[in-house]
Amino acid sequence: MSTKPTVGRVEIRIAGEGGQGVILAGIILAEAAAIYDHKNAVQTQSYGPEARGGASKSEVVISSEEIDHPEVLSSDILVALSQEAADRFSASMKKDGLMIVDEEKVGRVIFMRTMRLPITRLAVETTGREITTNVVALGALVGATGVVTREAIEKAVCARAPRGTAEINLKALAAGFSAVEKAHIPR
Amino acid sequence: MSTKPTVGRVEIRIAGEGGQGVILAGIILAEAAAIYDHKNAVQTQSYGPEARGGASKSEVVISSEEIDHPEVLSSDILVALSQEAADRFSASMKKDGLMIVDEEKVGRVIFMRTMRLPITRLAVETTGREITTNVVALGALVGATGVVTREAIEKAVCARAPRGTAEINLKALAAGFSAVEKAHIPR
Repeated sequence: MSTKPTVGRVEIRIAGEGGQGVILAGIILAEAAAIYDHKNAVQTQSYGPEARGGASKSEVVISSEEIDHPEVLSSDILVALSQEAADRFSASMKKDGLMIVDEEKVGRVIFMRTMRLPITRLAVETTGREITTNVVALGALVGATGVVTREAIEKAVCARAPRGTAEINLKALAAGFSAVEKAHIPR
Repeated sequence: MSTKPTVGRVEIRIAGEGGQGVILAGIILAEAAAIYDHKNAVQTQSYGPEARGGASKSEVVISSEEIDHPEVLSSDILVALSQEAADRFSASMKKDGLMIVDEEKVGRVIFMRTMRLPITRLAVETTGREITTNVVALGALVGATGVVTREAIEKAVCARAPRGTAEINLKALAAGFSAVEKAHIPR
């Protein structure tokens, strides 16, 4: 599997529409990195006019060093859960970056290194709850990139899961990891 | 009441301990500004070693202009829900800024323009749920500063409230507004 070394600085965007849990996904990923993997992490939401149209994005910078600039300028990793997100952010990918898209939400993609997974469908099939889409996406993201350890993301998901939902969230996370194992690896 | 003009850039920190809902408060405030007041807003969490000790902070920058730098360098507004948060961030207040502290959690404060309110107690007394502390804090913050409109913060709170809890969250918010009306106004 394509694994990005997590020394140095890694810039991640998770983008989609309101209601897909994009912001919470960013928070969970940052907490996995900082609290459980003992790195530094900054997590940012910028709200401009597009927020009023329902677009949602979360940015996470993870580094073993101190983080001077919290902005994501060009993404090492982009998860796009809507066509608009894919269109808007694929141009600012790093050349050797990895884009992961929900294949049922995103048709056209101009970026070569793109992994297509049925993220929302996997959430519904695995847990019966579309609201776990963001956690499936996190499983895919971490499975494909190793940007945080599996143990760290599992702990971070459980810490943020509403009471009584740790088990189904861990199932959703595992579904994301499995999907990546079976997926086409973009070169 | 001391009202900060919301033209230009306003830098806000909300800080406390894990479990006080500090991060969600920052998200709600940013969404109030951007989605309902039609400004620009950036909301950031930085996680360093202190996050592993349970400290939590959320930063929000609101501006009528585009926001070039998402970092809070010196706060116009600081809400401190723990002694550690008050100690850590009061030194980087703007001189004419406003600090709001939970008076039952924060004893010592070195910053002059500080408003002391029983934020956590008001949450428990008003809604029976300590988990609404962050929403009481938002009511106090907005009541004291006018950084977003009351209508915007009400809509943003309702949009983020878990199903069936809009009413108690609006009560918590109103309790924050009322507390400020009765409070000593720091000059």
